Amino acid sequence: MNRLSRCALGLDFGTESVRALLVDLAGNERGSAVVKYKHGQITETLPTSGEKLADDYALQHPTDWIVSAARAVRRALKQAEIAGPDIAGIGVDFTSCTMLPARADGTPLCLLDELADVPLAWPKLWKHHGAKKQTDLINKVARRRKEKFLKRYGGIIGLEWFFPKVLETLEEAPAVYDMADVWIEGGDWFVWQLVGGAASDLPRSTCQAGYKAMWSKADGYPSSAFFRALNQKMMNVVRDKMPGRLIAPGQAAGVLRESMARKMNLPGIPVSAAVIDAHAGVPGAGAARPGALVMVLGTSSCHMLNSHEDRFVPGVAGVVEDGILPGYFGYETGQAAVGDAFDWLRRTVGHRNFDTLTQDAAALPPGADGVLCLDWMNGCRTPLMDGTVKGAFMNLTLNHSPAHLYRALLEASAFGVRWIVELLQENGVPVKQLIATGGLPHHNALLVQVYADVLGRPIIIHPCKNGPALGAAILGAMAAGRKATGFGSAASAIRAMAAPKKAVPARHARTVRPVRAHHKAYAPIYADYRALASYVAKK
Amino acid sequence: MNRLSRCALGLDFGTESVRALLVDLAGNERGSAVVKYKHGQITETLPTSGEKLADDYALQHPTDWIVSAARAVRRALKQAEIAGPDIAGIGVDFTSCTMLPARADGTPLCLLDELADVPLAWPKLWKHHGAKKQTDLINKVARRRKEKFLKRYGGIIGLEWFFPKVLETLEEAPAVYDMADVWIEGGDWFVWQLVGGAASDLPRSTCQAGYKAMWSKADGYPSSAFFRALNQKMMNVVRDKMPGRLIAPGQAAGVLRESMARKMNLPGIPVSAAVIDAHAGVPGAGAARPGALVMVLGTSSCHMLNSHEDRFVPGVAGVVEDGILPGYFGYETGQAAVGDAFDWLRRTVGHRNFDTLTQDAAALPPGADGVLCLDWMNGCRTPLMDGTVKGAFMNLTLNHSPAHLYRALLEASAFGVRWIVELLQENGVPVKQLIATGGLPHHNALLVQVYADVLGRPIIIHPCKNGPALGAAILGAMAAGRKATGFGSAASAIRAMAAPKKAVPARHARTVRPVRAHHKAYAPIYADYRALASYVAKK
Repeated sequence: MNRLSRCALGLDFGTESVRALLVDLAGNERGSAVVKYKHGQITETLPTSGEKLADDYALQHPTDWIVSAARAVRRALKQAEIAGPDIAGIGVDFTSCTMLPARADGTPLCLLDELADVPLAWPKLWKHHGAKKQTDLINKVARRRKEKFLKRYGGIIGLEWFFPKVLETLEEAPAVYDMADVWIEGGDWFVWQLVGGAASDLPRSTCQAGYKAMWSKADGYPSSAFFRALNQKMMNVVRDKMPGRLIAPGQAAGVLRESMARKMNLPGIPVSAAVIDAHAGVPGAGAARPGALVMVLGTSSCHMLNSHEDRFVPGVAGVVEDGILPGYFGYETGQAAVGDAFDWLRRTVGHRNFDTLTQDAAALPPGADGVLCLDWMNGCRTPLMDGTVKGAFMNLTLNHSPAHLYRALLEASAFGVRWIVELLQENGVPVKQLIATGGLPHHNALLVQVYADVLGRPIIIHPCKNGPALGAAILGAMAAGRKATGFGSAASAIRAMAAPKKAVPARHARTVRPVRAHHKAYAPIYADYRALASYVAKK
Repeated sequence: MNRLSRCALGLDFGTESVRALLVDLAGNERGSAVVKYKHGQITETLPTSGEKLADDYALQHPTDWIVSAARAVRRALKQAEIAGPDIAGIGVDFTSCTMLPARADGTPLCLLDELADVPLAWPKLWKHHGAKKQTDLINKVARRRKEKFLKRYGGIIGLEWFFPKVLETLEEAPAVYDMADVWIEGGDWFVWQLVGGAASDLPRSTCQAGYKAMWSKADGYPSSAFFRALNQKMMNVVRDKMPGRLIAPGQAAGVLRESMARKMNLPGIPVSAAVIDAHAGVPGAGAARPGALVMVLGTSSCHMLNSHEDRFVPGVAGVVEDGILPGYFGYETGQAAVGDAFDWLRRTVGHRNFDTLTQDAAALPPGADGVLCLDWMNGCRTPLMDGTVKGAFMNLTLNHSPAHLYRALLEASAFGVRWIVELLQENGVPVKQLIATGGLPHHNALLVQVYADVLGRPIIIHPCKNGPALGAAILGAMAAGRKATGFGSAASAIRAMAAPKKAVPARHARTVRPVRAHHKAYAPIYADYRALASYVAKK
């Protein structure tokens, strides 16, 4: 068979289900299947004891990941009508930080009889918010000790991250902490299950470690002195309970072991290190070159970029060497409310859908006849990293309509992106290309036009609707190696499999170009937005 | 017959119609009739030539005032089943500044054949906005000359006032200006028609002159040097074209002359000097004592107060000696958008009425879960006197609902009143009592409760729904004199005819008392409001 008709498999683990995507090395989708997790999100009661869970708990069942993924792979193979030997490699993206405690043989603690009824023995889903107190402590101690790692995360460690969840378990369920030989991300655990091997050699992703566990290639994890300052018992958590080796997404973690290969109808092919689902969207959106900002626009937004430059950019949510692709510094920035805020406004003005709002907002001039919005209705990620700041509408008159508010909100969202791009560039991280992906760009043309106008730059809408799964497949192809795929670099794999222009014709990328006059009109309005943001941030 | 069963007649000239109200000296409404003006507001075409009017024009027909008033009086008399001799006196309130040019015999210029087709020969209604350019000039010249009168008006002369309209006519229709022997307010012209007499002796109200024509008891009208600086031809406008004597509302302008008495089925009874409609609401709301702040709450709000004190209060829209009642300094303050802003919000959030909004807003705690509003959607009257500032909503989160916005808006309105009360008091003008009247208090109980809570004071809701007409009737009774009525003072007339407690039982006044805990909770929120107002005012 033709080399390019070989496929890579991407496994995209979401919150409710897993998607298996088979893509050939020319970028054609050949088969796909989505299988829900039997237990979904566990937020109400524990499946074993039926115990009612606290409001801020969100758990998952580790067996669901294995069972659903195997089923999805078999279905995708069947749909694609291709056989196991046609698959070159496997990539895995996963929600993060979804993490769990396990034994040295990989058994999740929640599957042990003696811990099955302890909620904190179960995998904690990314959105598990039980570690508020612990997060506060971690931030307090890190600031007091002036920990260098803080700079890489905009000065703030997140509630959903790895060590808050570890510390929560240590404080709230010490027996679980004691029993754990391995604390591990869900994605890393799944890859470990695929490739097998001893705990001491288990593959951990530099992506999850870098963005969620304060690890860096240069400095490793936080020091034992830091952990001791949090809790005496946690002092040696890294040495004693986090065994393994760190490898970058796209590098091979090993080959599929026989037991898993059987479950999936696949041969013993290479498996890439895991990647965070959002970050998989970067290769998935065809961002082959450093300097391409991939804007994953959804309920919230994540804007990611690979760069040769290692710079401190104030307010960036995370910068991690080898964090997205091997050989680059991966920058993660974000906006806390995008689609969520649009939907809030739609509900607030009593509209059933966006049809008339969009139509009327599109007819308004840049600046929405004076209405100025700050879209911090869910706090501000980049650049403030502050969940407590809030949104605003200014300059309201009796002549303003719901469409004015909606247009001003879209513009605020665009101003937020402009601010991020300026921050990166002013700090020596070039932004050369803008690629929009995620759910929103495909059904909100006005939003992308406003972004292009505010930024004064063309925006490529990437046609792939399963960007993370495609990105995972690309990482799988990279892990398979040059001999199997012909790809000598991440860039060549991405260009071949996800270049927007190479996508299936019916779903070709569109480039949205800025209207020059609008861009000019936005200059003073953006200045007003920044002034308002300063006022609100300082209050 | 019993003295107190005698009546006074109030004539309340609105924008579309005139109301005749007969009230006995004990405050009982005996008869009432409303008659529309045949020509209503003349805003599209001139009734004579059919000429299309400019967008910012709003005229009236002077004959309408006479014809409609006569018909309304006859109908009210019939309804009340009382005869002319039972009427003690007449009071007249009128929209302002509605003004016209007339001949020395009182004939409006628009009724002369040679000027009937000239729009600016017609009475200009208060909302006629043709004098923008002239208003700018007047303000510029007044500021340049540091005219003392500016201080009495918060530093700004309004577009709707008397001299802008005179200057507009001089500049745009000089023939009309030349032909005018008398420039006069509509209310003064009507009273002049009632009592007759030479132009040199015609009665002008200190209320209209003070609030709309920069007159003061101490300094008179602006100087001829000021008028010359506006326009050489205008230098002697006061001496040459504004004959008459100035008297306060409640003082007798004369007695009803025979021709008018016949039209109205009335004897030759005393007629009070005219009063501005809003200002008539002060006696109409039973504000007998100095220090009672009458809050006329409608689409916009006017807050008026009589005081013994002559103080300069920054941002007060007008302070006029004898401006509301003889013997007091009348203070006028206001809020530019009240009911208008509530209605704008209702439309903006897509509600058909206020039912659920009110119910949900009432269930929220003081401070609307953090939402902070600035209700300047139509600019700010007191204290900024700035029509260009705009409204805002701050501290928005995805959890806020339309009811949060509505409650925050009601609270902003209340904070505006609190600011006004504090301004008056801090500048030595005591505010001893709060009386709410106008349309809103009767159907928006939540609003009055929020006002009481924010101010920390009881608020009396005055039951009279025709406050200005009742106020005019009280002024008519005052003009009739002690011998006819037994009232030795304005206070005794007001107490007898409009004390809230004396009103018809079914429409008794209600007193809304503050909830102490709420008042306390509002202290920091009011501080936030003031900080936001400072920020917006300085932008």
